[in-house]
Amino acid sequence: MNRQQLAGRIDHTLLKAEAARPQVHRVVAEAIEHRFASVCVNGCFVADVAKALHGSDVLTCAVVGFPLGANKATIKAIEATSAVKDGATEIDIVAHLPHLLKCDKAQAKAELMEIVRAVRSARSTTVVKVIIESALLLADVDASEGEVRIEAACAAARESGCDFVKTSTGFHAAGGASVEAVRLMKKHSGGLYVKASGGIRTYDDAMRMIEAGADRLGCSASVAIVTGGA
Amino acid sequence: MNRQQLAGRIDHTLLKAEAARPQVHRVVAEAIEHRFASVCVNGCFVADVAKALHGSDVLTCAVVGFPLGANKATIKAIEATSAVKDGATEIDIVAHLPHLLKCDKAQAKAELMEIVRAVRSARSTTVVKVIIESALLLADVDASEGEVRIEAACAAARESGCDFVKTSTGFHAAGGASVEAVRLMKKHSGGLYVKASGGIRTYDDAMRMIEAGADRLGCSASVAIVTGGA
Repeated sequence: MNRQQLAGRIDHTLLKAEAARPQVHRVVAEAIEHRFASVCVNGCFVADVAKALHGSDVLTCAVVGFPLGANKATIKAIEATSAVKDGATEIDIVAHLPHLLKCDKAQAKAELMEIVRAVRSARSTTVVKVIIESALLLADVDASEGEVRIEAACAAARESGCDFVKTSTGFHAAGGASVEAVRLMKKHSGGLYVKASGGIRTYDDAMRMIEAGADRLGCSASVAIVTGGA
Repeated sequence: MNRQQLAGRIDHTLLKAEAARPQVHRVVAEAIEHRFASVCVNGCFVADVAKALHGSDVLTCAVVGFPLGANKATIKAIEATSAVKDGATEIDIVAHLPHLLKCDKAQAKAELMEIVRAVRSARSTTVVKVIIESALLLADVDASEGEVRIEAACAAARESGCDFVKTSTGFHAAGGASVEAVRLMKKHSGGLYVKASGGIRTYDDAMRMIEAGADRLGCSASVAIVTGGA
């Protein structure tokens, strides 16, 4: 895979709390220039980004329940629907993590179904990615228990009609994407796409994730990654 | 101020993404036992906490737009209203930080007014605290520019009808509460209460914040702080 093909796999991402409109517009311009898959932003910038990307092939991606995932499902559903109405075609939702930590597939699935249903009512082709904070799921347990958690999270995502499982918010102290997490998610995805995100800063990082099975990457250093600066 | 009086100034706080119901219930029990001012949680736990605190003097506090503050104002208003309907009597909202960083008082005020109006429609006596991420506002600028930012943030909070300015989410890399930030917030509060939060882990930390002018503290280590364990 060359750097140009890699660009088409990257959600060019700007999620820090202090990001202001000029920085968002720079990210949009970079995404159009380098043909990234999407621009991924917080809710307050979605309408702006969708308008600026109109007429390009770059998609608009919004995060929801971000980064803690600790809002009520109903609020996540409203936030996601609002983002779709503002022009987002892809929605990255943080799952309620305690459900995933205790492998409660039924509750995880119930939450995700409520959100997916709302989002698809607003726009039937909306792509939904579920962030499972994989580094947290793999922390403080042995490898087999970690794998059971990843498997349950993937099953909940799949059975609730999501399109992607995504490794990380990039904001959790447990860490971002790892080769191990991506491999496990690919193994248990059952046809879902896998997005790796969090701490992917160089071309080598990116290629390691692709080789482990990632279909999409979330990066902030996207320009450096595809132009050889990193 | 003795430790018992101090307890009455503390919002006993559990906001981490992986917090599950048993931990939330432990925090509720601790708050009742030690007579903390409130229990402060994420939206998904508010109804549960309000029910468990019913009949006690401990208040229910919910965070909104937490911790990035980068949701649309409308979504923050819906999230806050939902928390009030679930039983929260205090709402801690993260302001849109780019407005505060560029001292855009008019936009900051407009955002906060939309949320305050919605929240007070749901329950007229709801206490609203605005988190201004003071460590971020004071970072990378000289002291006088930092103070101008704090002053503008306090003015926006006051003029939009909020009750408190609050230092920090505790999740931002710029840091939590500092004596300097609390002093500046008190100086420019114009009668608003000041809540210090983020990194207050010991009795000495807590007393330093009170002496600097804090009316309320947000702490996770609250029990250790008031029992002499920290």
